[in-house]
Amino acid sequence: MLNTTEVNPGLEGVVAADTRLSSVDGQHGELLIAGFPVETLAPKASFEETVYLLWHDTLPDIDRLAAFRHELQAARALPPATLELLHAAAMESIPPMDALRMAAGTLSLPAPGLVVSDAQATANAVVARFPTIIAAYWRLLHGDPLVDPDPQLDHAANFLYMLTGEIPHPERTRGLETYLNTVVDHGLNASTFTARVIIATGSDLVSAITGAIGALKGPLHGGAPGPALDMVFEIGEVASIDRVLRQKLATGERLMGFGHRVYRVRDPRADVLAVAAEHMYQAAGDMQLYTLAKAVEERAVALLAEHKPGRNLQTNVEFYTALLLHGLDLPTELFTPTFAISRVVGWIAHCFEQQALHRIIRPQSIYHGPRDRQWVPLTER
Amino acid sequence: MLNTTEVNPGLEGVVAADTRLSSVDGQHGELLIAGFPVETLAPKASFEETVYLLWHDTLPDIDRLAAFRHELQAARALPPATLELLHAAAMESIPPMDALRMAAGTLSLPAPGLVVSDAQATANAVVARFPTIIAAYWRLLHGDPLVDPDPQLDHAANFLYMLTGEIPHPERTRGLETYLNTVVDHGLNASTFTARVIIATGSDLVSAITGAIGALKGPLHGGAPGPALDMVFEIGEVASIDRVLRQKLATGERLMGFGHRVYRVRDPRADVLAVAAEHMYQAAGDMQLYTLAKAVEERAVALLAEHKPGRNLQTNVEFYTALLLHGLDLPTELFTPTFAISRVVGWIAHCFEQQALHRIIRPQSIYHGPRDRQWVPLTER
Repeated sequence: MLNTTEVNPGLEGVVAADTRLSSVDGQHGELLIAGFPVETLAPKASFEETVYLLWHDTLPDIDRLAAFRHELQAARALPPATLELLHAAAMESIPPMDALRMAAGTLSLPAPGLVVSDAQATANAVVARFPTIIAAYWRLLHGDPLVDPDPQLDHAANFLYMLTGEIPHPERTRGLETYLNTVVDHGLNASTFTARVIIATGSDLVSAITGAIGALKGPLHGGAPGPALDMVFEIGEVASIDRVLRQKLATGERLMGFGHRVYRVRDPRADVLAVAAEHMYQAAGDMQLYTLAKAVEERAVALLAEHKPGRNLQTNVEFYTALLLHGLDLPTELFTPTFAISRVVGWIAHCFEQQALHRIIRPQSIYHGPRDRQWVPLTER
Repeated sequence: MLNTTEVNPGLEGVVAADTRLSSVDGQHGELLIAGFPVETLAPKASFEETVYLLWHDTLPDIDRLAAFRHELQAARALPPATLELLHAAAMESIPPMDALRMAAGTLSLPAPGLVVSDAQATANAVVARFPTIIAAYWRLLHGDPLVDPDPQLDHAANFLYMLTGEIPHPERTRGLETYLNTVVDHGLNASTFTARVIIATGSDLVSAITGAIGALKGPLHGGAPGPALDMVFEIGEVASIDRVLRQKLATGERLMGFGHRVYRVRDPRADVLAVAAEHMYQAAGDMQLYTLAKAVEERAVALLAEHKPGRNLQTNVEFYTALLLHGLDLPTELFTPTFAISRVVGWIAHCFEQQALHRIIRPQSIYHGPRDRQWVPLTER
């Protein structure tokens, strides 16, 4: 037993789980996902293959993949009460992450034509329905008619289809799948840890996932790629890069998209996403934003090295995430919900690992309040 | 920094928080709540006084207490979408804890006549609405018409009123208040820790509370007083106590209601609840069950000492909780939801403490999976 008088409020350096799901090596900039370097897996696998890999620790063969695709497609429809709740949330313009959290919490309710009989079926249903929730909510928020899921489309393509009503170009689907594969798991981040703490009490998957969404929402979580591209838009043209960056550094402003609490070298996910973004912008025939972003990145890293020597501040995953998701015409408000479409798969995989331990996660607190207070009746206070 | 290669999957012995809210001393059987020994505070305070004490670290004077009572009373009504969701959940006979989790998740939505403008108002609304959710859901489950909150009644009395439609006898209200005061906080249990992990990301109170309910649901959490009285009912009469207990011990059956993972002596909450239960059964004029339970307890502790020497297995809080809540005619299915009516106050107080730190809680995982797997195209698997 460790020394119980030393408080570690961030649990920094404490190892709370053994996992086969992902390995984050911040010193060397290496990320393994179920044994694959992220740069090997992410650009090649379909998202369904990645989900299967993470949950079963092996890539599916043709028959298993077809069966799994079918299971996910069959589970996309929402329980009617979930849709009604999204309507009510849209009337109040609740932020999308709150709407996702509320709606995910209702996934214990049965959906039409689907009996959720066991933990694996629940897991499939949760993963299958996240895109449906997010696309439906976005359309409700804007008064647009809902788009039913298309059973001919796979997970990523169907999300873009439900959002826009248009079948996406294959290069866009590939871009989104590469993104989803890249961020599917990343050690014990706060939302994953939340899911593990909840499921460790013997609670259910929907409870764990709902808690994890609540944690992911928090601005300190670090999974929020919202503002990373704002600086690129602000700079606007290659000629302004140095002037704007130097001005920001001179006034002590933080450069969004650079630096990470774990990685001391370049985040290995950045290159994977950069290549995917490049292909996508090429296919769309407009490289202007991509070229500007690359130039901003190069100068930002160089200027950071000059202004903050020894800190080794590198491009983080948020920078290229924002570039890629922007290229998919996703609004900034949907960046974190789209991240959740991927990360929910990791949360569930961690829940499966944690369930096998049959053990509660329960650290201690230390009391520093008063002792032996005396009761004073109300009339004498 | 601690040794990062040693995995501590239960975080046992790790101190994750400094708190002024409660002190649990399992070796000496002492529980302090905001500086008061539980046996001093619980039988005397109204529940509103306990809530105020936990949140503000001082007992309220007459004016402050009146104002706080009014704030809670004014916040009891549910958002319409929350009620609709409870209707849908009742149609599917979802268990009450799942219904509470779903409904609590929707409390980000505005309720009629109440603008939730800040964290304190949200906290009030969450606490005020838990009894409304639980009473409404129970009546919906049984096809009974809903009972509106009564603004003349305080928190505990109003809960019993909304459940039954009858204004409770003062001794019953006192019994429930003593119970709610007794279990309002208890160190870093798993649900409280969940709330802290979520709020530590910078997320909101409703997200934290919803995650905590998900953790409380789990059978390993230990806050579930459901089956503790079953053994007393099974025994049925004083003459059968020894025969039934000896039979259970001989077959290795666990005696529900005895033993606790923290307390090595008698749980200090047991006596507080025993006295409250005694008063309540006396007022109702039927001491039969109370007398039987006391006799069962006495023999169970003695026989456990004989059969499991050195383990020091004592009566835990669940035993007298069950006796007290049963005396209030609460069905077993509502024991854990009623626990949540109290503990949500502790969760919120811990959230306030955690928010002041502005610091994420993020332990690490260690990877033990394969490395450098090679990609095999689908057709070659």
